[in-house]
Parts: sequence; C-alpha cells; structure tokens
Amino acid sequence: MTRKLYDLAGADPELRFSPYCWRVKLALAHKSLPFETIPWRFTEKDEIAFSGQTKVPVLVDGDETVTDSYAIAEYLETAYPNEPSLFNDNATRALTRFVKQWTEDTLHPAIGRVILPSLFARLHPKDQPYFRMTREAAFGMTIEEIAEKREAFLPAFMAALVPLRRTLQAQPFLAGAGPLFADHIVFGALKWARKGSDVPLWDLDDPIERWMEAVLDTYGIAG
Amino acid sequence: MTRKLYDLAGADPELRFSPYCWRVKLALAHKSLPFETIPWRFTEKDEIAFSGQTKVPVLVDGDETVTDSYAIAEYLETAYPNEPSLFNDNATRALTRFVKQWTEDTLHPAIGRVILPSLFARLHPKDQPYFRMTREAAFGMTIEEIAEKREAFLPAFMAALVPLRRTLQAQPFLAGAGPLFADHIVFGALKWARKGSDVPLWDLDDPIERWMEAVLDTYGIAG
Repeated sequence: MTRKLYDLAGADPELRFSPYCWRVKLALAHKSLPFETIPWRFTEKDEIAFSGQTKVPVLVDGDETVTDSYAIAEYLETAYPNEPSLFNDNATRALTRFVKQWTEDTLHPAIGRVILPSLFARLHPKDQPYFRMTREAAFGMTIEEIAEKREAFLPAFMAALVPLRRTLQAQPFLAGAGPLFADHIVFGALKWARKGSDVPLWDLDDPIERWMEAVLDTYGIAG
Repeated sequence: MTRKLYDLAGADPELRFSPYCWRVKLALAHKSLPFETIPWRFTEKDEIAFSGQTKVPVLVDGDETVTDSYAIAEYLETAYPNEPSLFNDNATRALTRFVKQWTEDTLHPAIGRVILPSLFARLHPKDQPYFRMTREAAFGMTIEEIAEKREAFLPAFMAALVPLRRTLQAQPFLAGAGPLFADHIVFGALKWARKGSDVPLWDLDDPIERWMEAVLDTYGIAG
C-alpha cells in the first residue's frame, strides 16, 4: 500500500507551499520512506475528514493515519526505529522543540507579514475567502493593509534571519554535519517564504540559500 | 592553585550581571569545578591585560588562561572530559550554537533596550563613561533616549520570550531533563535582565522563572 501525504497546494497544483507539509516531506525522505503526495486545498475539508483533522499535513501510512507535523515526526521515529533518527537523542530532541517554537512564534509571523499578500494571489480562488478570513483574524489586519505595510515589516523579517544565518556560517546544518528534524522545521518556513514571495528574500550566495540546497541534496529531492 | 574567574561587577561588588560570566559560572558548576570570582569593572583593563583580552569572562585555570565564554565552555569540555558534558554530543552542540546566536542576536538586543538605563545607574561611577560611550554606539541612541522609549521597546522584549516560555511549558530545561550549556547561555541573558532591571520583567509563576530556579537548584548555587 502506497504511503500518502495530503499536501497543501495553490491554484497551480504543483505549488506546494505549506511549511508544515515540507517538514513532513523532509522527515519521510530522512527515513528513506517512499510516499506520494495528494494536492489538497484549504477548503477541501471533506477530503481529510476521515483523519479527524481539518488541516494538513495528513499522513496515511498503511493502516495508520497521523496528523500534525510534529506528531508525524514522532510517529515516524517510533514506527521506523531502524532508519536514521530525526532527533538523534533526548537532548537534541529537547533543543529541537526550542527550534520549533522559535520557528512558529518568531520566524513564521515575520515571514507571514512579508509574503501573505503575494501568497494569497497564488491560491485557488475557492480557497481565497477562507484564507482571507483566517489570516486577517490572525494578523489583525486586512491582506491589503499587510501589503501596504510590507516595507515596514521587512526589517523584522531580516532580523529574524540573523541567528539562522550566523549559525549556518559556522556549520553546515543546524544539527551539525547533517540535517535532522530541526533543520526540516526551519527549512519548511523558508520554503514557504520562497514559494509565497514574488521577489527573492535573500541573496543566492547567502549561507541560508546554500544550506537549503544542501538539505535537498542530502535527500536527492527537488525543491 | 585556586581556579579564578574575573566576573563583571556593578558599583556594589556583589552585583554580578554579565550574561557571559553567568554562562561560565554555570558551566563550571556543571563540571563540579570549584572556583572563586574576582569582581572586575569595565575600565579595569590592566587587571586582565595578562589574558590578551579587554573583556571578561577571563578564566585562570592553573597554568591556563582562557577568554570568551564559548571558548571557555569548549575548553572545559576538553580539559575535563570525565565530568558531565556541557554539549552532550555533536548534534546537541550544533543546536547549542543556534541557541547562542538567537540569544546574542535577538534576545540580548531586546533585553538591552529595556534595561540599559537602569543597569547604567548601578554601575561603578568610573565605568559609566565607558559604558555610555560603547552602548550608545551599539544601540545608536543615548541612554536617555533608550529610557524614554522603554514602553515602545517592551513588546519586542515580550515577543522574544515567547519561544522560550513555550518550550519550558513542554519540558523542564531547554536541553530536556537537565540543563546543558544551551540552558546556561539563555539563563545568563535572563539573569542580566533581572539584575539590570528596576522592576520584574516576568511573573513569579512564569515557566521562565521556575526554570531559572531549577537551573540554580541543579547546581546548588545562589543566584
């Protein structure tokens, strides 16, 4: 039975931008587990109702259905203990949680304020009202107001990248010599930024860019 | 021969506020290495000239003199391999570097904007001109301007604490079941915030407060 991942898509079904789905795709690659993705839109709630969730990622692995990117990583770690670990050991797993929280509490909001309007334009029209409603509530501004303030939001985005960049100037991956789930989490955020933005948000020779390519190269996957 | 740490002090020689010195004190405690501290002021450059450095921490360990908090941690790890590790393993050490960069690039500036004026008032008068000159250059504002903008700076400080707090809601220490150097680094920043502020910057029942007490309890040292 084929392993299936419901993966958020834009109007173009090949546009896969969800930071949480990217985490899972890299985690599956890290465990050398083949899978196919099913493009899914925000409003296709019926398609994943079987999972008990209203959002992706949803992983169907044989008889198991697992939701939530962090829970999926923990599931993969338990279900496939003989494949390379996503967490290395307990101390690394604990620091990975800090990386997760930093990504979700600091990096994601900083990215969102910069890319939300351009991402909105790439969504399937049937998803746009849902996206507008939920994101405007989350950010406390209309999408048009966010677009108007883009220049004002850029410095916070640039500042959020600094600790990441400086770390990657000192070592190849966040987890050291090779990527672990901590890398997957931050990669997902930046892939979301890249896929949602009309313009480059960092230079091609930025250590962040080199690291993103190295993550993909590690697993031999296209981005 | 007694192990000696030159430790930054305020007008009150018992006020030890340096985030970098706190890292080292916790790292020495982690390694169960007895030491005495020598109170040192910013302008007492002659006192540490033997080290080749103009700033503390400076650790004198027998015939070895080591400067820079991160280099000191790496030195202790190498020189005392049979004591508990500060880094656990290579992946943890790599993620510790991200925690260091986040602390220095995001947390320290956010704290500095909130506490610099009150910290300034606690310095030895002979240090105040040096502190004013260097910090006003670093922050691009006079200490009085920083004080005037305190309310405007508070939200960024509060936002910087969020990933830390959420991590510590999920687990006892950043490094999991017990503190490692990653904890020491962030503890140092918050001790600096505490020692430099006229008012509490978080609640007594905040997970951050509980964690700080647990770090001190782990080593049986007073804060």
